[in-house]
Amino acid sequence: MTDTTDIETPEEAEALIERCKALAPGFAERADESDRNAAFPEKNFQELKDAGLMGVMVPKSHGGMGATFRTYTKAIEQLAKGDAATALAYNMHNIAVGSLSEVSLEGIGGSMAKRMTAFRDWVFEESVKGKVFASASSEPGLGAHFSKFQTRYRRVDGGFTVSGEKSFVSIAGHADYYVVAARSEDLEGSDVTPLSYLVVEADNPDIEFQFIWDTLGMRSTSTNPMKIKDAFVPKDRLFGGSEGLALYKIIKEPHWLVGGYNGVYLGIASLAFDTMVEMLKKKRIPGTDRPLTEDTRVQYSVGQLASRLRAARLVTDNAAMLVDTERGTPEANEAIHHAKLVCSELAPWLSSQAIRLCGASAIARRLPLERAYRDARCGGLMPATSDDCLMYLGKSALGADMSDPTENLW
Amino acid sequence: MTDTTDIETPEEAEALIERCKALAPGFAERADESDRNAAFPEKNFQELKDAGLMGVMVPKSHGGMGATFRTYTKAIEQLAKGDAATALAYNMHNIAVGSLSEVSLEGIGGSMAKRMTAFRDWVFEESVKGKVFASASSEPGLGAHFSKFQTRYRRVDGGFTVSGEKSFVSIAGHADYYVVAARSEDLEGSDVTPLSYLVVEADNPDIEFQFIWDTLGMRSTSTNPMKIKDAFVPKDRLFGGSEGLALYKIIKEPHWLVGGYNGVYLGIASLAFDTMVEMLKKKRIPGTDRPLTEDTRVQYSVGQLASRLRAARLVTDNAAMLVDTERGTPEANEAIHHAKLVCSELAPWLSSQAIRLCGASAIARRLPLERAYRDARCGGLMPATSDDCLMYLGKSALGADMSDPTENLW
Amino acid sequence: MTDTTDIETPEEAEALIERCKALAPGFAERADESDRNAAFPEKNFQELKDAGLMGVMVPKSHGGMGATFRTYTKAIEQLAKGDAATALAYNMHNIAVGSLSEVSLEGIGGSMAKRMTAFRDWVFEESVKGKVFASASSEPGLGAHFSKFQTRYRRVDGGFTVSGEKSFVSIAGHADYYVVAARSEDLEGSDVTPLSYLVVEADNPDIEFQFIWDTLGMRSTSTNPMKIKDAFVPKDRLFGGSEGLALYKIIKEPHWLVGGYNGVYLGIASLAFDTMVEMLKKKRIPGTDRPLTEDTRVQYSVGQLASRLRAARLVTDNAAMLVDTERGTPEANEAIHHAKLVCSELAPWLSSQAIRLCGASAIARRLPLERAYRDARCGGLMPATSDDCLMYLGKSALGADMSDPTENLW
Amino acid sequence: MTDTTDIETPEEAEALIERCKALAPGFAERADESDRNAAFPEKNFQELKDAGLMGVMVPKSHGGMGATFRTYTKAIEQLAKGDAATALAYNMHNIAVGSLSEVSLEGIGGSMAKRMTAFRDWVFEESVKGKVFASASSEPGLGAHFSKFQTRYRRVDGGFTVSGEKSFVSIAGHADYYVVAARSEDLEGSDVTPLSYLVVEADNPDIEFQFIWDTLGMRSTSTNPMKIKDAFVPKDRLFGGSEGLALYKIIKEPHWLVGGYNGVYLGIASLAFDTMVEMLKKKRIPGTDRPLTEDTRVQYSVGQLASRLRAARLVTDNAAMLVDTERGTPEANEAIHHAKLVCSELAPWLSSQAIRLCGASAIARRLPLERAYRDARCGGLMPATSDDCLMYLGKSALGADMSDPTENLW
Repeated sequence: MTDTTDIETPEEAEALIERCKALAPGFAERADESDRNAAFPEKNFQELKDAGLMGVMVPKSHGGMGATFRTYTKAIEQLAKGDAATALAYNMHNIAVGSLSEVSLEGIGGSMAKRMTAFRDWVFEESVKGKVFASASSEPGLGAHFSKFQTRYRRVDGGFTVSGEKSFVSIAGHADYYVVAARSEDLEGSDVTPLSYLVVEADNPDIEFQFIWDTLGMRSTSTNPMKIKDAFVPKDRLFGGSEGLALYKIIKEPHWLVGGYNGVYLGIASLAFDTMVEMLKKKRIPGTDRPLTEDTRVQYSVGQLASRLRAARLVTDNAAMLVDTERGTPEANEAIHHAKLVCSELAPWLSSQAIRLCGASAIARRLPLERAYRDARCGGLMPATSDDCLMYLGKSALGADMSDPTENLW
Repeated sequence: MTDTTDIETPEEAEALIERCKALAPGFAERADESDRNAAFPEKNFQELKDAGLMGVMVPKSHGGMGATFRTYTKAIEQLAKGDAATALAYNMHNIAVGSLSEVSLEGIGGSMAKRMTAFRDWVFEESVKGKVFASASSEPGLGAHFSKFQTRYRRVDGGFTVSGEKSFVSIAGHADYYVVAARSEDLEGSDVTPLSYLVVEADNPDIEFQFIWDTLGMRSTSTNPMKIKDAFVPKDRLFGGSEGLALYKIIKEPHWLVGGYNGVYLGIASLAFDTMVEMLKKKRIPGTDRPLTEDTRVQYSVGQLASRLRAARLVTDNAAMLVDTERGTPEANEAIHHAKLVCSELAPWLSSQAIRLCGASAIARRLPLERAYRDARCGGLMPATSDDCLMYLGKSALGADMSDPTENLW
Repeated sequence: MTDTTDIETPEEAEALIERCKALAPGFAERADESDRNAAFPEKNFQELKDAGLMGVMVPKSHGGMGATFRTYTKAIEQLAKGDAATALAYNMHNIAVGSLSEVSLEGIGGSMAKRMTAFRDWVFEESVKGKVFASASSEPGLGAHFSKFQTRYRRVDGGFTVSGEKSFVSIAGHADYYVVAARSEDLEGSDVTPLSYLVVEADNPDIEFQFIWDTLGMRSTSTNPMKIKDAFVPKDRLFGGSEGLALYKIIKEPHWLVGGYNGVYLGIASLAFDTMVEMLKKKRIPGTDRPLTEDTRVQYSVGQLASRLRAARLVTDNAAMLVDTERGTPEANEAIHHAKLVCSELAPWLSSQAIRLCGASAIARRLPLERAYRDARCGGLMPATSDDCLMYLGKSALGADMSDPTENLW
Repeated sequence: MTDTTDIETPEEAEALIERCKALAPGFAERADESDRNAAFPEKNFQELKDAGLMGVMVPKSHGGMGATFRTYTKAIEQLAKGDAATALAYNMHNIAVGSLSEVSLEGIGGSMAKRMTAFRDWVFEESVKGKVFASASSEPGLGAHFSKFQTRYRRVDGGFTVSGEKSFVSIAGHADYYVVAARSEDLEGSDVTPLSYLVVEADNPDIEFQFIWDTLGMRSTSTNPMKIKDAFVPKDRLFGGSEGLALYKIIKEPHWLVGGYNGVYLGIASLAFDTMVEMLKKKRIPGTDRPLTEDTRVQYSVGQLASRLRAARLVTDNAAMLVDTERGTPEANEAIHHAKLVCSELAPWLSSQAIRLCGASAIARRLPLERAYRDARCGGLMPATSDDCLMYLGKSALGADMSDPTENLW
């Protein structure tokens, strides 16, 4: 996507963020209900589709918005301030489309370039139409350790068949396509890392979901296990048009997998902070008419939260910017892990402290703080987990080459 | 209760703790359902009554168990490991009975002693029978600032009438009696602090509850607002048999109000820790057969949680012991605020870190960690809040006399 | 300094930072001795002068380097990695010169513009020659609360006389000029804030230093009390050429006062981190041949330090950049307080943790970690102190207008 | 020491603590000088000897004070509040004598009991006379990993010869005896752990110290490297009268090695806290006449320090008590590691925060806060280091048997 006509203008970027900001209040209104019922936010997704947002990462030349990673991060933060679970689910779609929009065909020719182009164009087209792609990666007991995945596929006439079990598939039952990471039986033993992505259609009769998602937070993302039994995938639904690219991309350019939802958790922290400030402003120092906000202790505590929130915002923005300017460099990769760590751990801490500062009324479910506290705790558990990010930063500082698969956590 | 025949023997203390431990698994089984429905744990309370536990603080000479504060703290920790909300609600009953069991009649004679004895004996008798006393103190916008309360009562023939609004009344609709803190209109302007407790019966037609409790955690305690409109209270239901004692007791001996539920939050932290250890023991270092517990990083992180949990246990036990040996001294009062702070803030931190260490599967609602994380955040909001406790410790260290009502937070 | 010919080119900026980097090893070699003897680093200052660095903030049109605040912050970080005390003392000079280089004459005409220009040109000229300006602001018992200062001056023939006591005057006895903040007796009661800066020459017979600086860290800055007794200051040494500007500038554009030394404390943290990494790389897991850096616990701990250091670097750089692009805006002022807080508290924490990780050999005085630990603790005590910065952030988040002198800490 | 006539009475315990309290002011007066010059505190040690304190752990039946570990911990805290380095050096003596006073002869008969008794009686006698025993354990590059030590000894006529290099020998050059941990060449390959302690006299011509101790804190302990070249040790100077006991004792009963100096670091934290409170009480809220201690922010911050200090005191006291009541149990050993961790990390944190709260004047070397900050950082580096303690707690919580040498850190 080096063609600048493919990328948003600054004005378009601004407009995109504003559009997301405008969607947030509606999301916020519906958030409590979908949270209580662990019900997928259909209406929110319809609004996202109507706004053309399924094509947010699709180049403008293909009818999309051509958002940069930085704009995307800011946009999703706005959505998360309305409903974090919606933003999180929406991010899963963009992980697939966004990483595809980055593929360069430079130096690639012949039939391979043709296959890659064809596949890419198809994804772009579908996205612009409002079709939703979901990611089916994690496996039971293995988490997101891609190199250990047990789901397998083999070549058959006209395509592939794939079999295995996936866990934590977000948007399960509500997406149009599922991007399944699987191990090639044919490539086993060859030089190529035998891990590919295959796109399975929602109506494929050989996939089955178990709808058991019932969790602390992020309750409406429909993140459920998926069973795949000899499902046929036509060869033109091989992700990227080429086998064996999955792990390579994750190790070299982990930003989508690791940092796509940084904006989500930053948004939660930001929402918790704003809600707290509004609540504190309405309070009085007990037994007086003086506003509680005049109490130096309160100012001091708020200052501590403000400091960490502001730092997280800078870390996140810097990481997103580096992804745009020097994607895949050690600096960009380190930055994205750093931001993932900082946002993921800021959100639960800040929402917990915000409740503490606001007092007993802050735990009522009708207030967004309560949901923020629950949604927030989920961030550090998603890949790369907070502890994996710390290990990444620590190993890197101690001199390890983090692009070396043996050092890497996947 | 200086008579040693009133106090439990060490063997009885041990037996009490064991009884509570034995109740916990049943509580745990029912916890999820009452949490989901915000339904009062009727069955748990019936089991508590059947076990004679409504009389846990009643002197043995009156048919109770004669528990010390220390034993009580350990006992309620066990209950909380089963279901924290039940333990918390149960504590509200003991706040009333426990503080009454401490009243000394030494140096008091005549009709006053008679009235005090009569009232006390009545409460003891009811408790032993399994009747439940609830506390109606906090008021909208005032929290637990007793000295500012707006609920008022005045003397009438044969007793008093009381009017006002209370918030955060736990066990609302499920108690037999409500101990209402109210301001005397008759005593206004006299030397006596005009704050008393009046015991209102559950079937008094002039009280009304609004059942709106729908919160992050502690969802089944039925902690609701209560309206009192000219409710008549017979004179023998004046708490302690004497007017104007409410505030005095809170300032001089705040341990019940502040530290009755220390065991509850210690129990939550303890439950979260144990659950985490069990989960970690089942995990492997990704991609290997080695148990995750061999990873030095995991050991190191668990060590940090273990350190804080163990310290909190010592702080809590020390405070409870000081209440027993030197109740009402500056040392005991400081200790109880310290323990309140430490347990209240340990529980949310530890449960958050435990989830982080255990990973994504730890947020499933079927696991106690999830509920622990939600219940835990409520501790620091209850009086004395964590921040009030910090202020208490800070002021005290800087030389303030915390028994001076002007320094005090109430 | 809107004229772009006054400001460094990117290449010049890079060269400046490199020059400072090149000075650092020499500084490092001499650091231990000047630290032990609390001796002013004469040789380091001579090298700074020889490199033309006294004119670092002087516009290029006046013979200086025309550094931006951002480049300056990066440059001083490099010096601090050599010797933090030298960097700190050097910063005191730039506080005076840098703030002067920012003064705009737009909209000012006549004799005032003439006076201002004359003064500015003189300071620039002296700086380029290598003369050193020191700041004499803080007062005993008042710290840096400018609005409370007791040092006074009055108008006399040909200038002013000034009297008072100053504390914490860095470079005392080694500067060529002392910029003294003093209260005008003549302006008292007028509309103008009666606080001005007067430049006193080193050889003025009516100033006297007491050389008592003997501290934990920053031992060689010669930060000493100064007595001024009816010292005459010619009228062309009135700072900025105009009375009553001192407080105004501090409140509107506090970046020099607050954030000039951000780079210093970032440099200390950075030095501590680098030293730690080098030490850890040389160690083995006890009783094995495996490098200690393979221990996941060590990687995890280093990751925590790396995360905070990286965040501080971004916060600092962002603040410095905002000073350059939108000096004096609420955003820039908040950013600079944020950076001051973050760097000041990062440095002692990180150096403490670095020692902990490296073990007993890290406390030897021959290693820079030991000095870093001592120097680091001084940052949060300098204006704006860490706690003042937290108050600034907290008040600002709660809606206070921090450019309002009644909210401000000065 | 099961004979109760050997152990102090409560009154004697109280008197001992008071005696140490009385010594502290003199220590405090001399602390700055010995700290500056890294000069061993000869006068302090003379006062300790004159007060009979070299025999503090010697049973009363042998002319000593018969202190319990709990009383000892409280006593040394008092000394540390005067001069932490003196207290630390003094502790090294008691590590040797204290552990010896614990040896039980039960079940041991014949010549071995005779040898053990003879040796013990000799150490007791020397201690009561005021002789000082120093510990020579750690080795270059191995720290305190006893099982890896390279210093060796072999049997010769009338005793042993020992050779090796020791590091971090406190009281070097000022003790009367050095207790050297060494590996037996004769026992190599046998069932007995081949590690013994040999007592070398100060005037043994074959030992040599290198006086290079020049550190951040604990500067006057004379903690220096020692070379031992074929030094002869008569057989009656074999520690405990028996070979192969060294490692066994450390693993089974690590309290002296790990927790002897808990009181030292608790004392530093306590001193820092008290100094801070005194300083804060003298300050005003800037620009007002109101005491700074009325600022809620200050109260809040002091509360945080008070909370951690109080918790550390309880953890330390509990550990010391468990050593007295159930020495060598998993509970006691865990407690002592916990206390070591808590005190070692409290002291640097608290002294750092105390300086921050007190402001710039707190870093002057004439104030004890400055030295506290430096001394404090040394605690976590001594065996068991803070990180080793965390590992101990973590492994133990995860189910490891910490008395198993393969789990143990030594």
